[in-house]
Amino acid sequence: MRILGIDPGIAIVGFGFIDKEGSKCVPVQYGCIQTEAHTPDEERLLHVYEAMVQLIDKYKPDEVAFEKLFFNRNVSTAMPVSQARGVLILAAHQKGLPIGEYTPMQVKQAIVGYGKAEKRQVQEMVRMFLKLQAIPKPDDVADALAVAICHAHSSTLNSKLNEVLRK
Amino acid sequence: MRILGIDPGIAIVGFGFIDKEGSKCVPVQYGCIQTEAHTPDEERLLHVYEAMVQLIDKYKPDEVAFEKLFFNRNVSTAMPVSQARGVLILAAHQKGLPIGEYTPMQVKQAIVGYGKAEKRQVQEMVRMFLKLQAIPKPDDVADALAVAICHAHSSTLNSKLNEVLRK
Repeated sequence: MRILGIDPGIAIVGFGFIDKEGSKCVPVQYGCIQTEAHTPDEERLLHVYEAMVQLIDKYKPDEVAFEKLFFNRNVSTAMPVSQARGVLILAAHQKGLPIGEYTPMQVKQAIVGYGKAEKRQVQEMVRMFLKLQAIPKPDDVADALAVAICHAHSSTLNSKLNEVLRK
Repeated sequence: MRILGIDPGIAIVGFGFIDKEGSKCVPVQYGCIQTEAHTPDEERLLHVYEAMVQLIDKYKPDEVAFEKLFFNRNVSTAMPVSQARGVLILAAHQKGLPIGEYTPMQVKQAIVGYGKAEKRQVQEMVRMFLKLQAIPKPDDVADALAVAICHAHSSTLNSKLNEVLRK
């Protein structure tokens, strides 16, 4: 099963495609979509949307996992990022892909086993888990891979649970 | 010139098409797009997007005006509404429509001449301005018409300013 993890943003959208093979996760492609500052919102949103549609068409994921946004203070940052998240969710849903959403705490719990883990710990675990030589940069890419791995874990758990329930 | 005013939301999107004829504004069509509560975000976003694309195709506006969101407290409301706003902006930009954005205060200033006017005053002015028998309901529809009228006013001002500057 191929999973696309997404860390939404308006300036930078991190993405990571991984293949879940048994209990292993293999990186397929990862990187980020970037938009120019000082360009109108509508152009940035269209760019994010079209780039995501192209990535989905090229790497054909089976499922998509989004990081849930968490803002405790800055609403003015939350709005443009949420707008971008809206068009990314639209792109995934138009392609008929099942969507999972995970809070930063759920991602940390899944990757490090501790919901309040440091960002650096999560990134190092992502690197080891995917057998990468270095932590992917910028942070958005590592975050996107982390949410993809989190989804892989939780879908393994779900399918095991379903097996048990069927028995 | 036909203007589409939009009051973004995830449960209710208010829309209002008006024709600007000289200094007058004539209502063409108005109403709202509604989505079901308790359905996944992705379905609601797709519904909002597709309904907006259909409305634009049917009523062929020349320009679109959005109400800018203003949240001073509730970030958890800001996020789903912003996601919807993102797909609405996408729909308008994909159709090549110029987009204007106005804060609630700018809308009130344009309609009532006072940036801190009461909601009810704004609605009553919208009704009178468009020669409607009653204030359109729900509020989102009246708000969408208000932002369309605000855009009509400001584009009149802009074209007059351009005329002066050309002389």
